[in-house]
Amino acid sequence: MAKAAKVSPLAPKTFADLAPIDGVRLATGAAGIRYKGRTDVLLAVFDKGATVAGVFTKSKCPSAPVDWCRKNLSQGKARALVVNSGNANAFTGKAGKAAAELTAKLAAKAVGADEEEIFLSSTGVIGEPLDASKFEGVLEALAAQARPDGWLDAARAIMTTDTFPKVATAKAKIGDVEVTINGMAKGAGMIAPDMATMLSYVFTDAAISAETLQKLLSRGVKHTFNSITVDSDTSTSDTLMLFATGAAEQRGQKKIKKAGDKSLKDFTEKLDAVLLDLAQQVARDGEGARKFVEVQVTGADSDKAAKKIAFAIANSPLVKTAAAGEDANWGRVVMAVGKAGEKAERDLLSIWFGDIRVAHAGLRDPDYDEAAATAVMKQDKIVIRVDIGLGKGKAKVWTCDLTKDYVAINGDYRS
Amino acid sequence: MAKAAKVSPLAPKTFADLAPIDGVRLATGAAGIRYKGRTDVLLAVFDKGATVAGVFTKSKCPSAPVDWCRKNLSQGKARALVVNSGNANAFTGKAGKAAAELTAKLAAKAVGADEEEIFLSSTGVIGEPLDASKFEGVLEALAAQARPDGWLDAARAIMTTDTFPKVATAKAKIGDVEVTINGMAKGAGMIAPDMATMLSYVFTDAAISAETLQKLLSRGVKHTFNSITVDSDTSTSDTLMLFATGAAEQRGQKKIKKAGDKSLKDFTEKLDAVLLDLAQQVARDGEGARKFVEVQVTGADSDKAAKKIAFAIANSPLVKTAAAGEDANWGRVVMAVGKAGEKAERDLLSIWFGDIRVAHAGLRDPDYDEAAATAVMKQDKIVIRVDIGLGKGKAKVWTCDLTKDYVAINGDYRS
Repeated sequence: MAKAAKVSPLAPKTFADLAPIDGVRLATGAAGIRYKGRTDVLLAVFDKGATVAGVFTKSKCPSAPVDWCRKNLSQGKARALVVNSGNANAFTGKAGKAAAELTAKLAAKAVGADEEEIFLSSTGVIGEPLDASKFEGVLEALAAQARPDGWLDAARAIMTTDTFPKVATAKAKIGDVEVTINGMAKGAGMIAPDMATMLSYVFTDAAISAETLQKLLSRGVKHTFNSITVDSDTSTSDTLMLFATGAAEQRGQKKIKKAGDKSLKDFTEKLDAVLLDLAQQVARDGEGARKFVEVQVTGADSDKAAKKIAFAIANSPLVKTAAAGEDANWGRVVMAVGKAGEKAERDLLSIWFGDIRVAHAGLRDPDYDEAAATAVMKQDKIVIRVDIGLGKGKAKVWTCDLTKDYVAINGDYRS
Repeated sequence: MAKAAKVSPLAPKTFADLAPIDGVRLATGAAGIRYKGRTDVLLAVFDKGATVAGVFTKSKCPSAPVDWCRKNLSQGKARALVVNSGNANAFTGKAGKAAAELTAKLAAKAVGADEEEIFLSSTGVIGEPLDASKFEGVLEALAAQARPDGWLDAARAIMTTDTFPKVATAKAKIGDVEVTINGMAKGAGMIAPDMATMLSYVFTDAAISAETLQKLLSRGVKHTFNSITVDSDTSTSDTLMLFATGAAEQRGQKKIKKAGDKSLKDFTEKLDAVLLDLAQQVARDGEGARKFVEVQVTGADSDKAAKKIAFAIANSPLVKTAAAGEDANWGRVVMAVGKAGEKAERDLLSIWFGDIRVAHAGLRDPDYDEAAATAVMKQDKIVIRVDIGLGKGKAKVWTCDLTKDYVAINGDYRS
């Protein structure tokens, strides 16, 4: 593990205050998987069960815990979630599968559930065997200790190179009943589209069927976690899960069984807001990040084309180093638009940094003022906007700059 | 322009000695486009004309000179090549088109040719107007001075952030007649597949029709310039051109008019070797490079799949920073294989650093010796080999590491 980094200058000034959620208990502990002097395991217990949905990495070499979760998701019911940091249990072959099974077995025993009701994640180094026997005793103790509070501690236990814990919360109405949505996430490298979350867990007391929950999550991820990138690298372990305890049913919420149910409107909005908040925090805590960059593309041939162009810009090392250098180098934005492979005509392009239009109709804006553009680049948050001038497709994605610290963090991560 | 960087430690120890080529004269000068105290314009004159072939960037926003060359390539005849550094004449709209036309007009007048027989390239900053009137007088003087030698000076005049000039040469037999192939190239950022050459020019005295020349070049680029990457960014200006003066015809070489002609065997091999040499020099001079990395993929579903996987590894910032940190972090190689999107099965993968097999059959090699793997990483050249274990597809690509210097060079390029 790299030495403790300073907290990202892009971190939120204060952490959101997460209220307890009926039916969720949390505990964290130190199993000594890799780190010393910090917590490295999180247990979330759903005493009365929860419906569950998940979205996972599209990597062709997923980790053993991802395989485990996928397998058990279809039955749609969760009794506990176990997350460890320090070891990803990825590319660990049969031993990795056995380690996941042992973890589930120990957790199932600790909370009195079936193994299939246990969901797992591991994050950290790839390819090292995970000694799951270290969870023995630890998970039982955590199950006994677990309490409805401690959300920030939970977010801390799952960190690897993150410089701050990431939490978000919202209240939503389903009919007349207020429900709570709490989420946490961790980054901070290997962040790219197609399930770029690294690890994120969202919890609610709403009563929603697993099938509906899955639809809401799959839809919600598109413009949130699947619209961020740190370094274009996709992890073997990316996991986003949503657990709904259904405790609100006791307060009169009618259980929702269809994604089209109109009473879900507010809940869906608030869920998406929590996902977006967490996703942006992940980009803000990209390894070595000093700038938070929002890329807006409009006027593309389709939304899909717009997103591809936006990611070409957001993933370009030359655009990202220009952001690091506070250099309004819009020529590199042109380059990135050009390489995206989507329809674009040089003479129709317009580019803005913040509110400053720097390029228009195929050449530098006649009113271009380098000082004004540079002032934009000096902000913590930089908005790069490109209008392709062809159609109605649009997209927004978020990333961070590429700094020497990114290289330093990743050049000696294992040492 | 960034301050002069030290020469890449990966530079060749000595430069190849390039013999004159009948029918090619070279001259370099200082037109004061952007730089002070160095040459920034190259003129190559083909007094008796040359057949010509070209491969250009796939960017949707190509530069004005690329548009110009594409337009004139079909007539297949060249009388001169003009290359300037310091300004890319890209994203410069109608003014850029006019600047290219003026350059061609001045060069045509200087060498007594038609404008359509002039080929152009520009490299440097994007989006700044190019004042082509600066070439007035300069090109005439160069046409008068041009001599059959000075290949290294020519390679120097087209450099931007390159730390060393790139030249390569070979002799080939066509029938009983010996011909010469001389090439030069420049990098050093925005290097990625799909015409990743930045600028490269190859010259020969062989007598080969333009159509045949184009076939040889299009075929040759695949495993050479289109198999290197520095930072996954594709320039608006990438250009590779091949000029054949045909002077060898006077020495008895029968002019070749078909790509399938068997007497082209040796020439094709030597041409490919020159292209590969130049391409690898570009990767060796990648911005901030300290390690030259060869990625070999075998056992993929197809050659195309192998190349995609190889590029996923070669472009991964996490793999590249691990190379910079001399860290045998094969977990990141697994990650990159996984994200490539091509068929791969964790339990069939094997990975080597140099001769050290670090992973096999889905987990760490039982004989894995971290010290031995680290010794490999300490070399200037690192070979990363991955066997997918599925089929017969294979590919080799070349890249460099990602260092703090890359960030420094690109964070203040324009300042």
